[in-house]
Amino acid sequence: MQLGLVGLGRMGGNMRERLRRAGHEVIGYDPNPEKSDVPGLADMVAKLTMPRVIWIMVPQQFTEDTIDKLVEVLHEGDLIIDGGNSKFTDDKPRAERLAGHGIGYLDVGVSGGVWGLANGYGLMVGGAKEDVAKAQPIFDALKPEGEFGFSHAGPVGAGHYAKMVHNGIEYGLMHAYAEGYELLEASEYITDVPAVIKSWRSGTVIRSWLLDLLDLQLDDDPKLDTLRGYAEDTGEGRWTVDEAVRLAVPLNVIAASLFARFASRQEDSPTMKAVAALRNQFGGHAVKKEIG
Amino acid sequence: MQLGLVGLGRMGGNMRERLRRAGHEVIGYDPNPEKSDVPGLADMVAKLTMPRVIWIMVPQQFTEDTIDKLVEVLHEGDLIIDGGNSKFTDDKPRAERLAGHGIGYLDVGVSGGVWGLANGYGLMVGGAKEDVAKAQPIFDALKPEGEFGFSHAGPVGAGHYAKMVHNGIEYGLMHAYAEGYELLEASEYITDVPAVIKSWRSGTVIRSWLLDLLDLQLDDDPKLDTLRGYAEDTGEGRWTVDEAVRLAVPLNVIAASLFARFASRQEDSPTMKAVAALRNQFGGHAVKKEIG
Amino acid sequence: MQLGLVGLGRMGGNMRERLRRAGHEVIGYDPNPEKSDVPGLADMVAKLTMPRVIWIMVPQQFTEDTIDKLVEVLHEGDLIIDGGNSKFTDDKPRAERLAGHGIGYLDVGVSGGVWGLANGYGLMVGGAKEDVAKAQPIFDALKPEGEFGFSHAGPVGAGHYAKMVHNGIEYGLMHAYAEGYELLEASEYITDVPAVIKSWRSGTVIRSWLLDLLDLQLDDDPKLDTLRGYAEDTGEGRWTVDEAVRLAVPLNVIAASLFARFASRQEDSPTMKAVAALRNQFGGHAVKKEIG
Amino acid sequence: MQLGLVGLGRMGGNMRERLRRAGHEVIGYDPNPEKSDVPGLADMVAKLTMPRVIWIMVPQQFTEDTIDKLVEVLHEGDLIIDGGNSKFTDDKPRAERLAGHGIGYLDVGVSGGVWGLANGYGLMVGGAKEDVAKAQPIFDALKPEGEFGFSHAGPVGAGHYAKMVHNGIEYGLMHAYAEGYELLEASEYITDVPAVIKSWRSGTVIRSWLLDLLDLQLDDDPKLDTLRGYAEDTGEGRWTVDEAVRLAVPLNVIAASLFARFASRQEDSPTMKAVAALRNQFGGHAVKKEIG
Repeated sequence: MQLGLVGLGRMGGNMRERLRRAGHEVIGYDPNPEKSDVPGLADMVAKLTMPRVIWIMVPQQFTEDTIDKLVEVLHEGDLIIDGGNSKFTDDKPRAERLAGHGIGYLDVGVSGGVWGLANGYGLMVGGAKEDVAKAQPIFDALKPEGEFGFSHAGPVGAGHYAKMVHNGIEYGLMHAYAEGYELLEASEYITDVPAVIKSWRSGTVIRSWLLDLLDLQLDDDPKLDTLRGYAEDTGEGRWTVDEAVRLAVPLNVIAASLFARFASRQEDSPTMKAVAALRNQFGGHAVKKEIG
Repeated sequence: MQLGLVGLGRMGGNMRERLRRAGHEVIGYDPNPEKSDVPGLADMVAKLTMPRVIWIMVPQQFTEDTIDKLVEVLHEGDLIIDGGNSKFTDDKPRAERLAGHGIGYLDVGVSGGVWGLANGYGLMVGGAKEDVAKAQPIFDALKPEGEFGFSHAGPVGAGHYAKMVHNGIEYGLMHAYAEGYELLEASEYITDVPAVIKSWRSGTVIRSWLLDLLDLQLDDDPKLDTLRGYAEDTGEGRWTVDEAVRLAVPLNVIAASLFARFASRQEDSPTMKAVAALRNQFGGHAVKKEIG
Repeated sequence: MQLGLVGLGRMGGNMRERLRRAGHEVIGYDPNPEKSDVPGLADMVAKLTMPRVIWIMVPQQFTEDTIDKLVEVLHEGDLIIDGGNSKFTDDKPRAERLAGHGIGYLDVGVSGGVWGLANGYGLMVGGAKEDVAKAQPIFDALKPEGEFGFSHAGPVGAGHYAKMVHNGIEYGLMHAYAEGYELLEASEYITDVPAVIKSWRSGTVIRSWLLDLLDLQLDDDPKLDTLRGYAEDTGEGRWTVDEAVRLAVPLNVIAASLFARFASRQEDSPTMKAVAALRNQFGGHAVKKEIG
Repeated sequence: MQLGLVGLGRMGGNMRERLRRAGHEVIGYDPNPEKSDVPGLADMVAKLTMPRVIWIMVPQQFTEDTIDKLVEVLHEGDLIIDGGNSKFTDDKPRAERLAGHGIGYLDVGVSGGVWGLANGYGLMVGGAKEDVAKAQPIFDALKPEGEFGFSHAGPVGAGHYAKMVHNGIEYGLMHAYAEGYELLEASEYITDVPAVIKSWRSGTVIRSWLLDLLDLQLDDDPKLDTLRGYAEDTGEGRWTVDEAVRLAVPLNVIAASLFARFASRQEDSPTMKAVAALRNQFGGHAVKKEIG
C-alpha cells in the first residue's frame, strides 16, 4: 500500500527501507533534501491517493507542528500515525482535534533502534479498531517475522503508554545486568568477567537481547574503559515513575534505575554533601571517623 | 566419556538423559532405587574406569555428606564436580580437603531449569585449567549448541560465584518485568495487557527468555488469577546482597528485588505497623488523616 | 491584631485558641455552627477592620471555593493566607488572580499536628516581603517559643513547597525508624525492644520528636498489636517524588518510603504475582523450589 | 564507685571526665602516656579494689588483644565492659571465654559522640542482670539526665546489636534529611534554603538532633561548599543490612542509604558504565540519544 512518511532520520530512514523491501510504496519527506523524496509536505501528500495514511517519525518537539501543517493539506478520511516518542497524555487531545477534521489518528510505540531494519520493529498501537485495520499492512511489514512484535494495546494513547512502560522496564533490566557486572568486576573470585557474561547468552534464565548487546560491547572493550558511567534519560523513564506515583504502584526497581541515571550526571551529590555535613557535626570537626 | 552422576532428581535426571543422547556413558546413582542405575555410591564408582569423573547434583545440604562418602571410594587422580547450588565460600575448603586425597575439584553453576534437557544448560565453571579440560566433553554435551553457554570463570569458587550473580540479576530482571506488568494492569490506558506483553517478545529492546515465560503464563492465566503474590528466595539472592555489602557495591535494584520477596511472605509488615503508629501519634488518636 | 480564620477543625480550632492565648482577636468561621464565631463568611469579614487578614485552614479541596467567596466580600489591601495543604503549583495562579482584586496572598506550610496548640506550629511562608510583614504578629504567636519554627522560604508557592519537602522527609524518617523497629523485633538478640526504643530518646544521635512518639505508642502497645501495617499517603509525598523526577534529583529513600505505603494498601501484589508466574514457569509447573 | 577505663581517646577521655564530675573514681589507662593515669594495664588493675569493673573503650581491632592482657591480671568476680564498636557476634564467644576465668562481661553500645560529655551518652547494654547491676552507678553517671538514655536490651550481644540498629536508622535518617535538602536546593521555588532548614528545628514533625546539626553546619557553610559529597561507612551500617538479609527483613531505606555511601566513594560507577554500554549498543555507536 501507499504511505507518506514524515521524518527520515535514523529511525524513519530505516523504516522507509524496510517498507520498500516489503513492496510498499513510501513517499518520504524530510527537511533535509538529501534524504527527502519530495520537496515539501504538500508534495508528499499530493503524491498519495485518498484516503491517505501518513506516518510521522520526528523528534517529539516537532510533532505538533508537523500535525498542524498536515491538517492543512489532508482531507476527511485520511489517517495520521504518530510513531515518535510523544507523551501518552498528548494523544487524546490530538486525536480529538484531528477528529474535528475527519482525520483518524493512531499512536504507535516503536522499539528496536538501529537493529529494526534487519530484525523488524516491536510495535504497540493505540487507537480505533478500524483505523488500525487501515494501516495493518504497514504494521505487518515493519514488525518482525513471526507471531510477536505487534499489539493493539487499547484506545488512543495506549500505544505510547505501552512504549513508555516498555522503556521503564528497559531501565530496570539494564540496571540489573549492570549491577551484576559491577559485582563480578569487584570480586576476587572471578578472573574472566567477559567470559562469564558471554556464557550467559545461551541456556541460562537471564539470556536476552540486552545481554547480547553487553557481550558485544565487552568483545571490543573488555573493561568498559572507553565509557564513562554516565547516562541520559529520555522522557519515558520519568513518565513511568510519574505514572507509578499517580496510580499508587510501588515501582522500586524502575525508580531506582532512573535515580541512578540522575546521580550519574551529577558532578557532586548535594545529598551526600549533606550526609557528610551531619557526620562532620556529630563526629567532631577535625575527624573523619564516625563515632556516633 | 564416562561419568558418575550422583543425584537424579529433576535436574540430575534430565542431565543424564542429555548426556546419554550425546553418546556419553553415564552411571547414575540416586537414593531412590527407581531412578538409580546402581544400588549404591560404591557400585557407581566401581563401574567407572580410573581416573574417574563424578558429578554431584544434590540439594546443597547433602553435598558435604556425599563428598565424605565419595572420598572413601575414590582414588588419587579422580575428579569431583559439584553442580549443585553450594555457596561459593564452601568451594575452596572443599577443594583443599580433596586435594589432600589427590582428588580434583570443580564447582559448576548450572542454569536452565526444566528447559535444560531440550535447550542445554548454561554452565559457569570454577577450578584448575587441567581439571576443566578433563571434564570438557561433559560440559560440551550439557551446554547448548553454539558458541555460548559455557565459561571457565576463574579458580575454585568462581563457578558458584558466577551462578550466584546470575541469580541476583535474575531477581532484578524478574522484578523489572513484574513492575511493568503491574503498571500496565493498573492503568486505564491499556485494555489488553497480555497482547502488549506478547508483542514485546520480538523486535523490542526488552525481549528475553523471561519475557517469553511471562507470556506463556498469561496465555493460560491472563490476569494471573491462579497465583498469589508470594515468592520464596533461595540462597543466591541473599548471598548476592551480602557480597555487595562486603565489596561496597551499590546494588539498589537487586536488593530491592530481594526485599520485595521478603515482604511478599509477611502476613503483616512490622515496619508499616510502626509507620502507622507514628501517624497515629502525631495525627491524633481518633483520626486516620495525616495532618503533620 | 485581628484575624479572620476560616476552618475550625482540629487544626484551625487549635490555632484560634493559641492565637487568643497570645492576645490576638480572632473571628473564626466554620460551616459547623457549634464551632463558628459567626453565622457566615461575610459576617466574619464584616467584623474585621480594613485592611483585613484572613487565614484559610480548610481541606485543600475546599480552598478554591473559599477564596471565590472571600473575593466577593474582601477589598483592595486585604490579605489572604492559605495555611492548608494546597499544592505549591496552585499558589502562583491564585496569587495572580487575587492581585487582580488588589488582594495579597501568602501560602503557609503548617506543621505540628495536634501538638501544635501546646508546642507551637512550624511555619514556612511563601509570598512578598511586605505581605509577610503584615501577618508577622500572627506568625509569631503561632510558632513555638524561641528562634526556630518560622521561615520566609521564598516567593508565592515556597511555603507549600517547603512543607511538601518537609513531609517527604517525614516519610523517610518514619520509615527509617520503622525498619529499625522491625529488625529489633525480628532478632533473637534483643529481648526488650520497647526499652531499647525508649533509651534512644536521650543522648543518642537518632533522638527526635518522631522517636518520642514511637515510644509513646509502645508504652500502650508494646508489640503494636492494635495496629495494622497500613498507611495512607497524602498528596505531599507523591508531589515530592514528582518534583524529584522533574528536577532529576535521586530521591531513593523518600521514594522507597512512599512505595512502601502504596504496597501496604494492596490486598495482593500484582508485581509479586508476576514474579511468582516467572518462577513457576522456569521451575516447572508442579514445584515451588527455584532451580534456575 | 571505682572504674578502670582502658582507652582515653576522644570518647574514653570525655567519659572519664563525665564520670569524675559525677564523683566516681576513674583510673584510666591509655598507651599514650600524656593521657594515661598509670604506666600500664597492670598498674591500673592494681589500683582497683576487687571485685573490679573495667571499661574498654578502644578501636574494635584492639579489643581482643586488650581482653587477652586483662585476663592475665584480673581475678574471678571481676567484670569487663566493652563499650567500643565490636560486632555483636563477637560478644557471646568473648563472654564464654571470660566466664571460664570467672570474669563477667557486658557489651554496651554507646551513642552521643563528642557531645556526650555535656549531654550524656545513650547506652544500650547486653548481659546478665547481676552484671548490669554491678555497673549501674557508672551507667547512671554516663547517661543523660532524666528517664531516657539507658536500656538493658537483652543478654550478651544485645548492647552492640541495639547500637548497630541505632546506626542503621541513623543512616536512613541522615539520608532522608539530605535528600530533602537536595530537593530544596534544586528547586526554583525556594530562595532561602538555610532559613527553611532552621525553621524546621521547632514545632515541626521532623525536628530532631540531626536536623539541629544540619542547621549548625549551614550557619557556617550555607551552600555546603566546604564539603565533598563523600561518606565513609563504619561496620554497623553493613552489619545492619547483613542482618536484614539473614532475618528476611525488607530494609529498603537503610540499604539505599548504605549503597549511596558506597556510590559516593567511587571515582566512576561500573554499573553506570555498563548502562552506558547498553545504550551505546542499541542506540547506534555514533549517537548519544536513546532511541530504543
